Amino acid sequence: MRIIRPPKTMAAWSQRLHREGVTIGFVPTMGALHDGHRALIRAARLQCDALVVSIFVNPTQFAPTEDLAKYPRPIAKDRALCRAEGVDVCFEPGVTAMYPEGFDTVVTVPGIARRWEGESRPHHFAGVATVVTKLFGMVRPDIAVFGQKDFQQAALVQRVIDDLSLGVKLIVYPTVREQDGLAMSSRNVYLSATERALAPILNKSLQAGAAAIKDGATAGRKIHAVMTQVLRREPAAAVDYLAVCDPDTLTPLESVRDRAILLGAIRIGHVRLIDNVVVRRPAKRERR
Amino acid sequence: MRIIRPPKTMAAWSQRLHREGVTIGFVPTMGALHDGHRALIRAARLQCDALVVSIFVNPTQFAPTEDLAKYPRPIAKDRALCRAEGVDVCFEPGVTAMYPEGFDTVVTVPGIARRWEGESRPHHFAGVATVVTKLFGMVRPDIAVFGQKDFQQAALVQRVIDDLSLGVKLIVYPTVREQDGLAMSSRNVYLSATERALAPILNKSLQAGAAAIKDGATAGRKIHAVMTQVLRREPAAAVDYLAVCDPDTLTPLESVRDRAILLGAIRIGHVRLIDNVVVRRPAKRERR
Repeated sequence: MRIIRPPKTMAAWSQRLHREGVTIGFVPTMGALHDGHRALIRAARLQCDALVVSIFVNPTQFAPTEDLAKYPRPIAKDRALCRAEGVDVCFEPGVTAMYPEGFDTVVTVPGIARRWEGESRPHHFAGVATVVTKLFGMVRPDIAVFGQKDFQQAALVQRVIDDLSLGVKLIVYPTVREQDGLAMSSRNVYLSATERALAPILNKSLQAGAAAIKDGATAGRKIHAVMTQVLRREPAAAVDYLAVCDPDTLTPLESVRDRAILLGAIRIGHVRLIDNVVVRRPAKRERR
Repeated sequence: MRIIRPPKTMAAWSQRLHREGVTIGFVPTMGALHDGHRALIRAARLQCDALVVSIFVNPTQFAPTEDLAKYPRPIAKDRALCRAEGVDVCFEPGVTAMYPEGFDTVVTVPGIARRWEGESRPHHFAGVATVVTKLFGMVRPDIAVFGQKDFQQAALVQRVIDDLSLGVKLIVYPTVREQDGLAMSSRNVYLSATERALAPILNKSLQAGAAAIKDGATAGRKIHAVMTQVLRREPAAAVDYLAVCDPDTLTPLESVRDRAILLGAIRIGHVRLIDNVVVRRPAKRERR
């Protein structure tokens, strides 16, 4: 496995491979890799000739109050995981190489970015859209794999790919979970033992919403109430939002037809957790 | 010469050529091609294997009050010029193909976009930055040629290329002028004979500023006064702005050292004209 730091070296590597007809797969990460990332890397590995994983803790998607400085950076362990999974290039650009003096361009997707995660984190998605566009510019992937855990992020990236004609095929890989249903996240390490024990309540809440839909509930308000009720069982978990949305536009649904995405974010102590569940309702004929 | 309309066909053409090691040159235009465009096309023709000219009157860079509907669209004449200059592909995407339902991404460069042209045209440069990024995504050029007449636009595009690592080499081609110094522009056709006769006053004003610098003037305020005085000779020409700026950042200079850009915009009747002159001051030793 090759470790590349300068963006220009990365771009030259990709250009050379494209000229040889090699397809490039890409998994952008902020490091602190866990089994969720491993699943993305394996999914990408199956769909391309050469595989790039980037490790870049992007400062522009953190707010000043957030955990940029203490975000985990276990680089040796991350490289070992990449090596074990057959990654060809581990791309580790530096912050000043990514954002040199005078950097001034912003990519935004106002329609998707203003809701949910964007409400609590106003500049987050502009940071994500900009860095992903730039990483795509350097890596020039044919396919890129993102995790479904960050569903809104994946929807945003798909929008940017389509709108700016970036020519990347996006694959959204299902969320990988701990045995008790907690979605894997690099931030889970911040949880104390007590907090960790109650963290699955978010997924339980979303699953209850999904079950209500499968049992025939259609009113967004009612499904929301079901999810809220489950979360109330754990007063230590503060709800940031719970929502029943259209999976494409992420706008709230008054009434669920065939598909919905249930989104949730909670705070436990200082840790913020997000999760989501996609629900497909069987067509009417099948339900009878 | 091939005429391509669907963006996907354009992207597929470019990808195939890149795989063959062919270099692609690109001149994005809004059509209504004149000798200024011809010069850009010839400059591009010399620096690439295959040459694409796009013709797309981009609605998002016009304000509602501006001349989108009546912008000249002499497509047959434009194609003939492209054919005569050895263009390989004339890319003519439709508005709904470029901006389908749900389009939501914006590329902005706030530092460069807020001044000068951006002041009178607040959304103009976001429209330019977004469409150029998208056109680059579809055409995937190795080099792109822009005219110096739109100096601020070229500075903005260079910023986007650098910031988003788009991998395009930008060539800024000197402004082509009529015999009397008027910068060529598709909007010159809107001028009445009387207006046309006085239009060169903008360039005369900028040339007077450049001459003052060459004669030793350094104070931005003094050079500005020289330019303003020339323009006052034509009361029919309303000054939008005149400025003495740093060529890289486009910020006003209190004192000119070795390089400056003199920028100007005026209105004559309903027509808005812009122009600029780059000044390099000889080093002190040479001046003696």
